[in-house]
Formats: sequence, structure tokens, C-alpha cells
Amino acid sequence: MNSPNKEIRIVLIGTTHPGNIGAAARAMKTMGQNNLYLVRPKIFPSAEATARATGADDILANAQVVDDLQKAISDCDYVVGTTARTRSIPWPTVTPRDFSSYVSKINPRSVAILFGRESSGLSNEEIECCNKLITIPSNPEYSSLNLASAVQIICYELRLNSGMETDFDKEPDKEKRVSQDKMEQFYTHIEKCMSDVGYYDLDNPRKLMHRIRRIFNRTELNEAEYNILRGFFTKIQSKLSNN
Amino acid sequence: MNSPNKEIRIVLIGTTHPGNIGAAARAMKTMGQNNLYLVRPKIFPSAEATARATGADDILANAQVVDDLQKAISDCDYVVGTTARTRSIPWPTVTPRDFSSYVSKINPRSVAILFGRESSGLSNEEIECCNKLITIPSNPEYSSLNLASAVQIICYELRLNSGMETDFDKEPDKEKRVSQDKMEQFYTHIEKCMSDVGYYDLDNPRKLMHRIRRIFNRTELNEAEYNILRGFFTKIQSKLSNN
Repeated sequence: MNSPNKEIRIVLIGTTHPGNIGAAARAMKTMGQNNLYLVRPKIFPSAEATARATGADDILANAQVVDDLQKAISDCDYVVGTTARTRSIPWPTVTPRDFSSYVSKINPRSVAILFGRESSGLSNEEIECCNKLITIPSNPEYSSLNLASAVQIICYELRLNSGMETDFDKEPDKEKRVSQDKMEQFYTHIEKCMSDVGYYDLDNPRKLMHRIRRIFNRTELNEAEYNILRGFFTKIQSKLSNN
Repeated sequence: MNSPNKEIRIVLIGTTHPGNIGAAARAMKTMGQNNLYLVRPKIFPSAEATARATGADDILANAQVVDDLQKAISDCDYVVGTTARTRSIPWPTVTPRDFSSYVSKINPRSVAILFGRESSGLSNEEIECCNKLITIPSNPEYSSLNLASAVQIICYELRLNSGMETDFDKEPDKEKRVSQDKMEQFYTHIEKCMSDVGYYDLDNPRKLMHRIRRIFNRTELNEAEYNILRGFFTKIQSKLSNN
């Protein structure tokens, strides 16, 4: 069950049309969601957003407007991105229904769901912040869902799963997952460690870190596991400098 | 499964805002529906409808505009209405999911799904044309879904149950996961590497490897990723022996 205490953030990134922000707020409220984050919206606040929000203007009034994605997600312990596109370097992708069910099972404290720009979606850099991607099943010949429609479907699936009994066994470890900002420290550390031992992808150094992120975003580390790996990297570094 | 030969009509009755007609057309097309009927729309055609339809203007161009609900539904063998409200005279009401599943089972030739006015929904007379009503589960304190959002959710549920192709069927990236025996080599390698740098859980050395296995079994590594991590361990070892 998605606990009512769980915080779910709807994070709209670089939204161009203020009407879509208002429509997304309305979509959220119909499904009982109310935490809206806006990362660098093109125009906000705006009369058009308020008009399209109809009775959900409280969501707009309480929206957090930030200039950097990290400010919206750094204290979240689970981050997912929505995407219509098939990417050349694949990322774990689930349906909204599977996502909703999975979130109930792993029961994070705070989940951020990222929605990209109307024209171009999420950037690769934004995707690299995600534990998983959600793709809404759609017509392969025309998969261009309106932004607020995508918000509507995801929040609808979350709602359907919020009150239902699940027979899922409790996962063995209900230990806390580490936050997004700790994972950023993890990636900085492993990158430095790889550099210290002279391990590069000479052809494409940025691609190496991209792949490393893809691997470790899948692990959804808890605190103890995180400390094991960070401790290993620190030990490698100190061993090298003492040799 | 909803046969692809089944005709499904989306019937919008007395729509006030032309933008909603365009947005509904877009919502339909993203889910592979294309039969739109408009009963006494207030304004149609309109530039606003076309603008909001984005790439779904073919649905608008082919829409049937009629002045009487009967003309939209008389040759249908199954008619359902959508409503947010609990009515004083109860009518059989189902969720979109149950509706979609039920329609697959009874397999009518042609289904009409009625959507009422933005302000007041379906009239009692219109409801009396319906075999069933669909209510979208929503926030009891704010159940006012936008018209196009309601169309989006119903068409989404129909699509999930239709057996129609989705983006998931086309997922290209089923890269091969490495075999179990390769993972055993991986664990031997990381254990040796940890030992080489002097990284142990002194209290319980076996527990460290237990945890490492738990982390990396979750990653479901493919060949390329596997080689990246094995390469990193090898590099750590050679750097240590050369120092």
C-alpha cells in the first residue's frame, strides 16, 4: 500500500506552456497528489496556469519553483523519469502500473517523478538521476501525450494502488534507501577512484560514467550497502597513496 | 482481448470549450483510438481545437458532428457513460479497468463511450441510454477531471486491455544478461581485489561478501557492464602491484 505518509513529488522540468502547468496541477489534485515542483518553468506564475488549474490553484500556490533539478530531488530516496522515447543506451523502463505497484512494495519515504519539456522530454543528464524510467504504453505511431495527460495517468495509477491490499511479502530489508545527494557523492567518489587507478574509457570518458550510473542506479543502495562501497573506494585510494 | 476490429466511438456531448475537443482528439490518438463523434459542440471546427490536437488533427477532420445523441449511438450494441457523480437513482457503475476488461469479454461489435458537458456532465436522459456507467476513481474532495483527461484515462485502459502493440513490445534493449557462472567469477574477482587492498569486514568476513552479492545480484549486469567492472578491478590490482 502506498502509505499516505509517503511524499510524492511531481517535478516538471523546463515546462514551456504555462497552461500545461495549470492542467498538471488539476490532474494531480483529482488523484489526491499535491506536491508540485517546477524546475526553471518558462513562465510562472501566470494567469493561464491559474485558469487551467480550475479548482486546483492551491497546488500552484504551494508549488516549489527551483532553478536546478538537484534542489527538487536531492533529499528524495527514489527518483523516476517519464519518457516516451526509446533510448540508444537503455535504462530500466517500467509501465505506470508496474511502477505504482513497485513503489508500494519498496515503500520509499519520498519519491520524485520527473516530467521533461513538452518538445524534447528529459535530457540524458536528467535521466542519469533516475532509478527507473516510466513509459506510458501508447500508440507507437503517435506517442505524444500532452504533459498534463501524462501526469494524469501516472497519478491515476498511483491512486489505484494507494488503498489496495497487496499480498507482496515484505521485502527482506526495509532499510532506508540513500538519498539522491548521497548518490551524487557516490558517483563523484567512484569517478575519482577510477581516475586514481588510471581506469578510463579512452575513447569516450563521459560514457564510462554514464554506464556506471546506469549500473548503480539499479542497485537502490541502502545505508549499510552504501557505506560498504564507499569504504572500499576509500581503502583503494589510501592503499595507493601509502604504497 | 479487445479485437482491433471492434469499433469504439468516443462521443463528446455538448462540449463548451473547443480546446477540450482538440485535447480529447490528441488523447485518443495517443492510445490508438480514432472514431470521434461530437454531439452539438458549442464551437466546431475551431482554430483552438486544431492547435490543441497537435498531430491528431486527422481525428478532428474525420469527426462526425451530429445534432442528436441517437445519431451517434443508434447502431452501437454497447453504450457506456462516464460520470464523476453519484446519482440519486443508482446505475450500474464500473471502473475504467473493469469496463475495459468487461468489454473484452462480451466483445460487442461497436461501443460508444459518452462524455458529458464540462460543467454538468451527462443529463439523466443521456444516462438512460447507457448500459453501464464508468466512474474514474478520484479524490472525493476534488473529482473534477478535465474532459480530455477523462478521455485519456478511458482510452489508456482500453489500450492496455486491447493487445494492441505498445512501445514495450518494441523495446530494443534486451541485451543479454551475463550468465551465473560469469557472476561467480565476478564475485571471486571482487573478493580478491578487496583482499588485495586490505578491505575486510574484520568482525565477519563472510558477511561482507554476502552483502556484495546482494548488491550486485540486483544489477543484472549485461556483458558490457560486466566488462567495465571487471576491468576496473583488474586495473586496481595492476596499479597496486606496479606501485
